[in-house]
Amino acid sequence: MTYASDNLVIVGLGLIGGSLARALRNNGFSQHFIGYGHREASLRRGVELGVIDDFTVDLDEAIDRADIIVICTPTLTTVQMLEKILPRLSARADGPVVTDVASVKGHLREAAIEIAGVMPPRLVLGHPIAGSERSGVNASDGDLFVNHRVILTPDAANDPAAVELVRAMWRSVGAEVVDMTVEQHDAVLASTSHLPHLLAYTLVDALASADNSEDIFRCAAGGFRDFTRIASSDPVMWRDIAMANKSALLNAIDLFSDHLALLRKAVEDGDADELHTTFDRAKQARDEFAALLAQRAQSKLP
Amino acid sequence: MTYASDNLVIVGLGLIGGSLARALRNNGFSQHFIGYGHREASLRRGVELGVIDDFTVDLDEAIDRADIIVICTPTLTTVQMLEKILPRLSARADGPVVTDVASVKGHLREAAIEIAGVMPPRLVLGHPIAGSERSGVNASDGDLFVNHRVILTPDAANDPAAVELVRAMWRSVGAEVVDMTVEQHDAVLASTSHLPHLLAYTLVDALASADNSEDIFRCAAGGFRDFTRIASSDPVMWRDIAMANKSALLNAIDLFSDHLALLRKAVEDGDADELHTTFDRAKQARDEFAALLAQRAQSKLP
Repeated sequence: MTYASDNLVIVGLGLIGGSLARALRNNGFSQHFIGYGHREASLRRGVELGVIDDFTVDLDEAIDRADIIVICTPTLTTVQMLEKILPRLSARADGPVVTDVASVKGHLREAAIEIAGVMPPRLVLGHPIAGSERSGVNASDGDLFVNHRVILTPDAANDPAAVELVRAMWRSVGAEVVDMTVEQHDAVLASTSHLPHLLAYTLVDALASADNSEDIFRCAAGGFRDFTRIASSDPVMWRDIAMANKSALLNAIDLFSDHLALLRKAVEDGDADELHTTFDRAKQARDEFAALLAQRAQSKLP
Repeated sequence: MTYASDNLVIVGLGLIGGSLARALRNNGFSQHFIGYGHREASLRRGVELGVIDDFTVDLDEAIDRADIIVICTPTLTTVQMLEKILPRLSARADGPVVTDVASVKGHLREAAIEIAGVMPPRLVLGHPIAGSERSGVNASDGDLFVNHRVILTPDAANDPAAVELVRAMWRSVGAEVVDMTVEQHDAVLASTSHLPHLLAYTLVDALASADNSEDIFRCAAGGFRDFTRIASSDPVMWRDIAMANKSALLNAIDLFSDHLALLRKAVEDGDADELHTTFDRAKQARDEFAALLAQRAQSKLP
């Protein structure tokens, strides 16, 4: 059997890293799977679960063995990992391909260029649009990426073979790979994910601060539960994302605030036409999006 | 067998009216259930389904027979029904108790006082916090109100016996009845329901207007779907609610906007502490709310 990779190293064996390793083992993409990280308990558990073959807590050893390194740590930790990994790579002419899964790409490209002087040809930044309310290697799922989007942000300085290897890796686990510029990616994620999280946190925090907050939470129901679910997300993770994607997030907040100001004026003026037109336009866009998602979910069925 | 009511009239036999009639029939609250409305097809269907005993499209006949009238029409239609019903009641000394289910109470009290000159003693305003994505009498469900809140807004001018009859009616279908002032009710609903709908509509409309809207909706996933689900709600219904609850809704928008401005500043300043503190506080409030909801859902199990 021919493998696309001999040794694939997963840095950070949580939900995403564990799910990717499971899926790639199932399809035989790499001959060996090695975990690297600080938390030995997670790595041991990964071996027990059959997610990885073995692990190391020695980064030099991990890099030495790897032909692909997938950094699956949270956003700001990914910067720290690049700080450790990139300088160690420079000594090797044909080092491993390095990729990641973080939610923000611009700050990683900046960090990489600052560390290496140039954009490293074999560093391919990527982001699978998949997740779960669960976390950790115990929740890992080999079908997590089937029919999900993975956005790659290839750079002019990238080695094309490295980009194609990362693309092949994601396609092999059933994902649909989309290329974007770093700027496009960060703007899209600011709109679809980072802004909604910020709005949900803002709403819950604003209501919790109100004089009638007890009545409010006592009388809220299912619609409020769905709308605010993402406000139960990890505050550290979202602090880091808000810090890392500052510029695109500010643009998204301002776009939203401008539209909210228009709607506030329509409420104040009692402008029934404007309210109806806006709500109707939004409902149409939302219904089209829901149909798109349903179609994608449908094609996921066996 | 003794009934709390001989003839209960449901005005507007949709999801809420149909579900209430089903539940009250099941527990024998009233001897007869009569539907009143303009849409004969729904009323006929209600008889076929056994939701009501019979129906009339003649309002005078309905009022003449009723000892309880429950107006289950949308917000602005409820005003129109009060305009028709209240003048017809004035001739009778001991007329039926009239109550409603609309999402806004202040404009109904105003309308009633304008129509009748005073707050009618036997008009008891109420609002069950229950619903479903489905609508119409075909979707009606006798368990819809079990363990749900019903807010009553009794007035100083109310006949206490009328308030107690409406309270007994909702308790008999398993609801938990909470009393509030009209102002409290409208502020709580603006916060937990009307504002979230407005924010969801605003977000979807803002993103649909963006240059990269195609990329945005193509790459949005489950979190975005949940957050924007309520933007698929009926635009006419929400236009009417936004018009009817203007003052409380403007207050809620302003509270939200003030908090969003603070968080925007924290993003702009790269203030990690402020971001973390806010997200953490919001997560705690959201988790407490989720636990409360889960507890309530649990107690709903047999």
